[in-house]
Amino acid sequence: MVDLPENADRGVPEKPAPEVASMYGLTPKVEAAIRDCFASQQWRRLRMLMDPLHPADKADLLERISIDEIQILVSQYGNEFDPEILPYLDEDVREDVVEMLEPDVLAASLPELDSDDVVTIAEELEPEELDDALAALPARDRVLVEQSLSYPEDSAGRLMQREMVVVPPFWTVGQTIDYLRSTELDNDDFYLIMVTDTAGHPVGEVRLNKLLCAQRPRRISEIMDTDIRSLPVTMDQEEVALLFRRYGMVTTGVVDNEGRLAGIITLDDIIDVIDEEAEEDLMALAGVSDASIRTSVLETLRGRTPWLFVNLLTAIAASIVIGFFENTIEKIVALAVLMPIVASMGGNAGTQTITVAVRAIAMREFSPKLAVTFGLRELYVGVINGVLFAGVTALLSYIWFGQADIALLLAVAMFINLIVAALFGTLIPLLLVKSGVDPAVASSVFITTITDVIGFLVFLGLAALYLL
Amino acid sequence: MVDLPENADRGVPEKPAPEVASMYGLTPKVEAAIRDCFASQQWRRLRMLMDPLHPADKADLLERISIDEIQILVSQYGNEFDPEILPYLDEDVREDVVEMLEPDVLAASLPELDSDDVVTIAEELEPEELDDALAALPARDRVLVEQSLSYPEDSAGRLMQREMVVVPPFWTVGQTIDYLRSTELDNDDFYLIMVTDTAGHPVGEVRLNKLLCAQRPRRISEIMDTDIRSLPVTMDQEEVALLFRRYGMVTTGVVDNEGRLAGIITLDDIIDVIDEEAEEDLMALAGVSDASIRTSVLETLRGRTPWLFVNLLTAIAASIVIGFFENTIEKIVALAVLMPIVASMGGNAGTQTITVAVRAIAMREFSPKLAVTFGLRELYVGVINGVLFAGVTALLSYIWFGQADIALLLAVAMFINLIVAALFGTLIPLLLVKSGVDPAVASSVFITTITDVIGFLVFLGLAALYLL
Repeated sequence: MVDLPENADRGVPEKPAPEVASMYGLTPKVEAAIRDCFASQQWRRLRMLMDPLHPADKADLLERISIDEIQILVSQYGNEFDPEILPYLDEDVREDVVEMLEPDVLAASLPELDSDDVVTIAEELEPEELDDALAALPARDRVLVEQSLSYPEDSAGRLMQREMVVVPPFWTVGQTIDYLRSTELDNDDFYLIMVTDTAGHPVGEVRLNKLLCAQRPRRISEIMDTDIRSLPVTMDQEEVALLFRRYGMVTTGVVDNEGRLAGIITLDDIIDVIDEEAEEDLMALAGVSDASIRTSVLETLRGRTPWLFVNLLTAIAASIVIGFFENTIEKIVALAVLMPIVASMGGNAGTQTITVAVRAIAMREFSPKLAVTFGLRELYVGVINGVLFAGVTALLSYIWFGQADIALLLAVAMFINLIVAALFGTLIPLLLVKSGVDPAVASSVFITTITDVIGFLVFLGLAALYLL
Repeated sequence: MVDLPENADRGVPEKPAPEVASMYGLTPKVEAAIRDCFASQQWRRLRMLMDPLHPADKADLLERISIDEIQILVSQYGNEFDPEILPYLDEDVREDVVEMLEPDVLAASLPELDSDDVVTIAEELEPEELDDALAALPARDRVLVEQSLSYPEDSAGRLMQREMVVVPPFWTVGQTIDYLRSTELDNDDFYLIMVTDTAGHPVGEVRLNKLLCAQRPRRISEIMDTDIRSLPVTMDQEEVALLFRRYGMVTTGVVDNEGRLAGIITLDDIIDVIDEEAEEDLMALAGVSDASIRTSVLETLRGRTPWLFVNLLTAIAASIVIGFFENTIEKIVALAVLMPIVASMGGNAGTQTITVAVRAIAMREFSPKLAVTFGLRELYVGVINGVLFAGVTALLSYIWFGQADIALLLAVAMFINLIVAALFGTLIPLLLVKSGVDPAVASSVFITTITDVIGFLVFLGLAALYLL
């Protein structure tokens, strides 16, 4: 039925092995066939190929094609567009797709989704679009979504879903099971029944396996787990993720400011948060803000140029230090040749230290005691690497320039700079945390400034003192 | 009951706000009180403080105290040591604790744990210790753990747990519920019942909520979900995590080489994998292998010194380029002052590009089409930043040295180096993937080598050509 091009050019091998690729609905073969449809404008065949795919695979396809092709797909589907695709889409692509959808298609899509997914989409809409979209929701859902949107961005209140099963503690197991059967819940995944008092405060949780194994006449209050953790709606999502990890939690209740149960957060919502936070730290350490491979040129510039400006200031600071020693360099040019080695090694060693520290801080692994242990270890490592690389570079420079005094100076400067890297690599992230600055964002700049400045200063300064 | 030191020195503020701290069982107050017990050797009070804590909090405490204090705790508890602590411990600390435990205490601990946790602990034991520990397990569990250990490290087979509920498709809902009630399963969390044919091949899954809502006489085969995904035991854990994320999976079956159900992997096992993989990429980009704040000096050196050696080669390559132009520098020292700016800006811009590319590759977001789009965007960004920073640095150098020709050269070199950074920042990670090398590990070194060498070469080379 599907004729495939003999040698579909796969370019970047994004799926390493065929047996892995076959786990995905969007196999390279299917993808190639779909691309073929775009090329030959076979829209009916395109839909025949797409329809059997899982929404996650459809989302992946949208992420792999160009924006014009997305536009074609969206218009081809019209009001038959599968709303389940939206939650699986990457943020940037989702924004594009939501913008392309006709207002009535978007409005018809939202009621099909879980409330947390609606909130995610609503967050990205312009105020007027938002009003139109929310108007399509049933009154009760609309209120819930509006309420969620009233909580701070990246808070537990935004993350939680409002759909949940709540029963009072005095119900029996039988009553609860009958209630579950009477509702249309069997297509929704849930693992936990929340128990609240008459005022709506959570008093316990019952896992479904416990409910299944309990006798019908028993009261919920007898079998419920009362050792529960309810998170406030205002809690930052990073904290929520840390709590889930810490306690191996799977589902947890979220309470509003009056302590009433407002929603639940499940582990699968946390995965996105963990990915997001890890990405933020990775990007911040490299001086990139809010970036993906799909961000526009303008957005990319906005996220990077300020960091390059900061780096320029750093580089200028280093140049000013070199400038102090113009006379020295003029007389001994070998210094200009060797000086970047001192700065570069210091910068790299310092980056190694801050990266380990920043990760530990993000994972809340630091305690005052561990900070001291860590600092001492870094110092030992700095001393040992300092001795090692002082020796190696001195030897190399002696072979190169045949001047023992320059080799000795290089050794001393290298040793000092690697110690400086260890000390400041430990101190900078800790001091930044103390002053309330995200250490992932600012550590790199500080450490390279310090190791550049100290590296050039010590090497050229000693040369000016002893070689002239 | 607990008298607290007035001003407990908390040092690094690892918990940002009091309302967040109160979500953890190990509050700063409790931690301070426990530290107090260590200082005053009040072991009975120490146990009174520790016993009510969640195993995750006890694990956290062990991670926050020194190794000598851990030793004291372990001996104080003796054979009353809570085995549930072990799965929550950081790898390095777990190794230490397992080594401290008396062989009979360790042996008594293992049967209390889930099979995947036993496997994790077993992985870290020496062969003889392993034999002793496994001998303590019931025969059936021992076979399962040994089987798991026979699968490759970091594979689905190591990650999966063997405890699961399996029923045949011809059972009725009533039969299944009665079976669940007859077993002692209600304390184990499970959300999913696996359905296999007589040969043990998975044929479907039933979510507990579906089972609860179904009538007793219905057959499992009627209500089970047959659209299931079974992962092979040999699949790499990174692939497993990507599949879980992609399809929003919560639990999935794992099949052995004969296609028989061997175990299940749940989303909470995946969290650790995601954290591990994110950490690996972050560390690799900074030239650090296998590190935490607790790694020993020797291990730390082993993970970092090779990278510093590679960086030394890079720095020497840059120095050799500078060495070509000793004459030029001798005549115009301003070049030596300004040259690090060109190299540094190129290195930073290149690192920005590779970081975004490496992350996208790790998340499998690249397709051939997107690679082209990404490369073009990076080129545009490079051109715009190139023009911008060429202008800014030229202006600054003119103000500084008052030489228009040097300013012009600096502008040209800066522009070229930022384009080079964009091009190679895109190409290097993609070429590394093509050649089967982890782009996170090698990209940084390549990009800084290239931007250093090209930066110095263009700037000094042009100066040699036009200024002398």
